[in-house]
Amino acid sequence: MPTPTQGYAAQSADAPLAPFSFERRDPQADDVAIDILHCGVCHSDLHTARGEWAGTQYPCVPGHEIVGRVTAVGGDVSKFAVGDIVGVGCMVDSCGECASCKDGEEQYCETTGFVGTYNGHDPVMGGHTFGGYSDHIVVKQGFVLKITHDEADLAAVAPLLCAGITTYSPLKHWGVGPGQKVGIVGLGGLGHMGVKIAAAMGAEVYVFSTSPNKRDDAKRLGATDLIVSKDEAAMAEHAGSFDFILNTVAASHDLNTFLALLKRDGTMTLVGVPEHPHAALEVGNLVFRRRALAGSLIGGIAETQEMLDFCQQHGIVSDIETIAIGDVNEAYERMVKSDVKYRFVIDIDTLKQAA
Amino acid sequence: MPTPTQGYAAQSADAPLAPFSFERRDPQADDVAIDILHCGVCHSDLHTARGEWAGTQYPCVPGHEIVGRVTAVGGDVSKFAVGDIVGVGCMVDSCGECASCKDGEEQYCETTGFVGTYNGHDPVMGGHTFGGYSDHIVVKQGFVLKITHDEADLAAVAPLLCAGITTYSPLKHWGVGPGQKVGIVGLGGLGHMGVKIAAAMGAEVYVFSTSPNKRDDAKRLGATDLIVSKDEAAMAEHAGSFDFILNTVAASHDLNTFLALLKRDGTMTLVGVPEHPHAALEVGNLVFRRRALAGSLIGGIAETQEMLDFCQQHGIVSDIETIAIGDVNEAYERMVKSDVKYRFVIDIDTLKQAA
Repeated sequence: MPTPTQGYAAQSADAPLAPFSFERRDPQADDVAIDILHCGVCHSDLHTARGEWAGTQYPCVPGHEIVGRVTAVGGDVSKFAVGDIVGVGCMVDSCGECASCKDGEEQYCETTGFVGTYNGHDPVMGGHTFGGYSDHIVVKQGFVLKITHDEADLAAVAPLLCAGITTYSPLKHWGVGPGQKVGIVGLGGLGHMGVKIAAAMGAEVYVFSTSPNKRDDAKRLGATDLIVSKDEAAMAEHAGSFDFILNTVAASHDLNTFLALLKRDGTMTLVGVPEHPHAALEVGNLVFRRRALAGSLIGGIAETQEMLDFCQQHGIVSDIETIAIGDVNEAYERMVKSDVKYRFVIDIDTLKQAA
Repeated sequence: MPTPTQGYAAQSADAPLAPFSFERRDPQADDVAIDILHCGVCHSDLHTARGEWAGTQYPCVPGHEIVGRVTAVGGDVSKFAVGDIVGVGCMVDSCGECASCKDGEEQYCETTGFVGTYNGHDPVMGGHTFGGYSDHIVVKQGFVLKITHDEADLAAVAPLLCAGITTYSPLKHWGVGPGQKVGIVGLGGLGHMGVKIAAAMGAEVYVFSTSPNKRDDAKRLGATDLIVSKDEAAMAEHAGSFDFILNTVAASHDLNTFLALLKRDGTMTLVGVPEHPHAALEVGNLVFRRRALAGSLIGGIAETQEMLDFCQQHGIVSDIETIAIGDVNEAYERMVKSDVKYRFVIDIDTLKQAA
């Protein structure tokens, strides 16, 4: 029997998030039912809730940085037991049959595309999926992650499920490690995780930012220094010296100034898709040093587990500001102004108390 | 004592190429003196002679697809002997000390940059270097290649020194081989070499061209088929199916339509630098399949030797049209109209007879 669920939803592109009641499916044989404890607030939540990307289905319950406790499991579930602390990230299902799914890269599912934790097509209930701004969720065990961090850190673990894996996956894929000089463009929710993870991987990390006043924070997070990206002289000092650059800035900007900082055979990987195109590419920046410009999307489920384990071992969590569910609209306004260090996380207990 | 040398030079950006006399240095201990037999005509020759790229120094003697016979060697030369058939490509020197030079990637020399076979700074004679539209050249042994093709094929070997290595190097670097589907964008001097080499590496090769009438030729050169790049339906049939695409087109065009044809983790590599920027990049094309856009510049000396040996073993030469030196200005006009299948090669004997 479906479970009544309380959440926060946008009813239209210009409506604020407000209380919304819906139902979660009864756990099937392969399902894990989760009492949600914390949910991170990702910029994607805002874009989707406000209809800034095409295709938002309303009511929209955002949230894909979910940490909770298992309350029930289906008969075929072997990996999780009642009481376990678990996570759910950006995906709750995929075709399981295509080359990418078989390679454990479900985020690149080539047939149906992965099922988003919210605003995806719900293959069981029909309609669209509802995310983690809610008290309860039911997810296939193959898309549930084990969390072994201390319970005191769980709110700060939540952003690892999106911001963590989105930065870990490219850093790992492009072989970041000791002896390498790595750049992180942008010091926001994604960037601050990129700095922590790249430093833990053993790289020498530099932050690129337009804000020189973020220097102390960059260093505290593990960077050697912050390079002011609009300071041409500072940028020129680092020409041709980076092994890898992770670019977390989704706003349109000039990629060429960063590409010029890569060594021969270096790669800059973008994890944001800009609304308007970036400045025209200077192809010589690629040709004359055999450089590459690449893109990367979150990470697969197995890699997300690997990232969570890596972060637990290295004592990495996100730097967060905890909010009550009723403050989420204000948090969106502050996020638009980049006024958050570095991620809002909703205490879902505040939702349960309000209900 | 310097050797009087006869060549063809442009005296200014708007002057046709015409006879020009100059001197080559006396072979030093490390030098190989070469009687030039054939010299390919590369599009770069035209751009440089006509001052279409910044920095042309006049008089300009183009030519960097050189095949000739050794006439003398310096006292320290061990790799070559008088009478050997040899080649010289785009480079005649580099610093030898930087990371790229030590890695055998002299084309990416990071200190002085490599010394171009023409229009480079001549480190021995001063002034600038003169290329292969001439009867004689003196080159450091480290930048001279051994040629083992049959003597009857030597004219058709000449274009391997630039067009061959420019396509071989990225195909090799990105691991093209059996079981892979590889695209070659553009069927000109570079593209036709790309098709032959990729097919010899064991890949299934498709040519992308705006000209459907090149289909028979594409197949004859080793391609499975030609895809008309402006035919949206034909392009859509191949979406997400290519392991690697080598893009040989220097003119501005829309890279996005090709990037969409790559598999997850596929790369498209550009070997041409457009005068005007390509159409704006759709970053989603990179992010949603972890694709990469890269660049590549000719190839190192050791790899150029490897390419020549590979081509000899696989019976690969360029498809050429031989011309007399006096026809080079007309050949340039035809090259502008892509009216050549697929490379002009100057019979340098015609220069010697004219002298």
